[in-house]
Amino acid sequence: MQLIETINEMSQVATAAVRRNKTIAFVPTMGFLHQGHLSLMAHARGLADILVASIFVNPTQFGPNEDLDRYPRALESDSQKCRDQGVDYLFFPQSQEMYPDGWQTTVNVSRVTANLCGKNRPVHFTGVATVVLKLFNIIKPTLTVFGEKDYQQLVTIRRMVKDLNLEVDVVGQPTVREPDGLAMSSRNVHLSTEERRSALSLSASLARARDMVAAGARATAPIIADLTSFITNHPHTNPDYVSLVDPETLEDLNVIETGALLALAVKVGQTRLIDNCILSVS
Amino acid sequence: MQLIETINEMSQVATAAVRRNKTIAFVPTMGFLHQGHLSLMAHARGLADILVASIFVNPTQFGPNEDLDRYPRALESDSQKCRDQGVDYLFFPQSQEMYPDGWQTTVNVSRVTANLCGKNRPVHFTGVATVVLKLFNIIKPTLTVFGEKDYQQLVTIRRMVKDLNLEVDVVGQPTVREPDGLAMSSRNVHLSTEERRSALSLSASLARARDMVAAGARATAPIIADLTSFITNHPHTNPDYVSLVDPETLEDLNVIETGALLALAVKVGQTRLIDNCILSVS
Repeated sequence: MQLIETINEMSQVATAAVRRNKTIAFVPTMGFLHQGHLSLMAHARGLADILVASIFVNPTQFGPNEDLDRYPRALESDSQKCRDQGVDYLFFPQSQEMYPDGWQTTVNVSRVTANLCGKNRPVHFTGVATVVLKLFNIIKPTLTVFGEKDYQQLVTIRRMVKDLNLEVDVVGQPTVREPDGLAMSSRNVHLSTEERRSALSLSASLARARDMVAAGARATAPIIADLTSFITNHPHTNPDYVSLVDPETLEDLNVIETGALLALAVKVGQTRLIDNCILSVS
Repeated sequence: MQLIETINEMSQVATAAVRRNKTIAFVPTMGFLHQGHLSLMAHARGLADILVASIFVNPTQFGPNEDLDRYPRALESDSQKCRDQGVDYLFFPQSQEMYPDGWQTTVNVSRVTANLCGKNRPVHFTGVATVVLKLFNIIKPTLTVFGEKDYQQLVTIRRMVKDLNLEVDVVGQPTVREPDGLAMSSRNVHLSTEERRSALSLSASLARARDMVAAGARATAPIIADLTSFITNHPHTNPDYVSLVDPETLEDLNVIETGALLALAVKVGQTRLIDNCILSVS
């Protein structure tokens, strides 16, 4: 595995690969890698000739009062994990090179970013879309693999790819969970023992909603009320949203007809966690 | 020359060319071609293996009260002109395919679009940047040629290319003028004989400003006042702006130190015309 730190070198390596008609799979990350990231890499490894991963804690997707400075970092062990997953090139750019003085161009995906996390994190998805487009242009992937845990991010990237006529296949991969159900997240490291217990209310809510829908519940308001009170009965929890939305447009649903995305964001202590699942009506 | 009407076909032709390591030069236009466009094509023809031109009257770069419906069209004679310039592929997409239902992604280049035409045409450059990026992604050019007549557009595209890490060489080409000095524009066709005479006040202003600077004028306010009154002394003229700005940032200058872009936009009758030149202090 080769560690690449400059845009120029990464771009040259990618261009040379494209000229040799090699396919490139790309997994973008913010580092502090866990099994969720590694499952994306393992899946990507089987899909292309060359596997590129990136680690970049992208400042433009954090709001002014968010946890950019607190976001955990671990380059050395991340490197080893990437090597173990068969990554060929690990791209690790510097902020100053990604966003030099005078930088002023952003990509805005409007409607699918209006609800859920986009509501309280207005700059977040513009930051995500912009950095992902920059990385695509540098790395020139044939395909890219994103986790379904960040479902709104996955929908946003799919929409951007379609709308800007990019020729990148966007592959989604299921959320990887701890044995007790907690969705893997780099932010889990911040949880105290007690908060860790309360964090289980997120994945438990998904199961609870599945049961309610299986039992015939279709109106979303009572399901949301039930889950919100279920979550807030756990100490240190403060829901940002509990939403049932159309899985493509991410617009709120009043009634579940064929299916819905259940999406949750909950502050547990100081740590904001998200989780989601698709609820299908059979 | 091959006329291509679908995104899919254009994209396949371009991908095949890239795979054969061919270079592609691209000249985007809104059609109704004049010598200005043809000079871009002639220049581009010498720079790459394959020359692609596009004709697309892009609806997203026109504001609600602008002249989209009135914009002149002439596909048949445009085709012949492209053929004569050695264009290999003329891409002529349909609006509905460029902007299908659900389309919602835009590219915003912020600071260089804030002044000049961007001031009174707030959606214009977002429309331009977005469609040009889409066309780049479909056509995969090695280089692209833009006219300096639309100077702010050229600066915006250069900025977007740099900021989004696109690997496209952006080449600017000088404005082509009628024998009497009027900058070529598809919109000139709308001018009455009397308006046509008044329209000469734009190019005459450029000469006038060059003389003032050669004579030692450096403060911008008196130059702007002189040119504004010179223009408005011609019938049917209504200046939108007369500006002296930094040629890179396009921010207003109080004093010309090393050089400036003089940029004009003037409504002549119902037709909005623009012109510009670089004023250098030697």
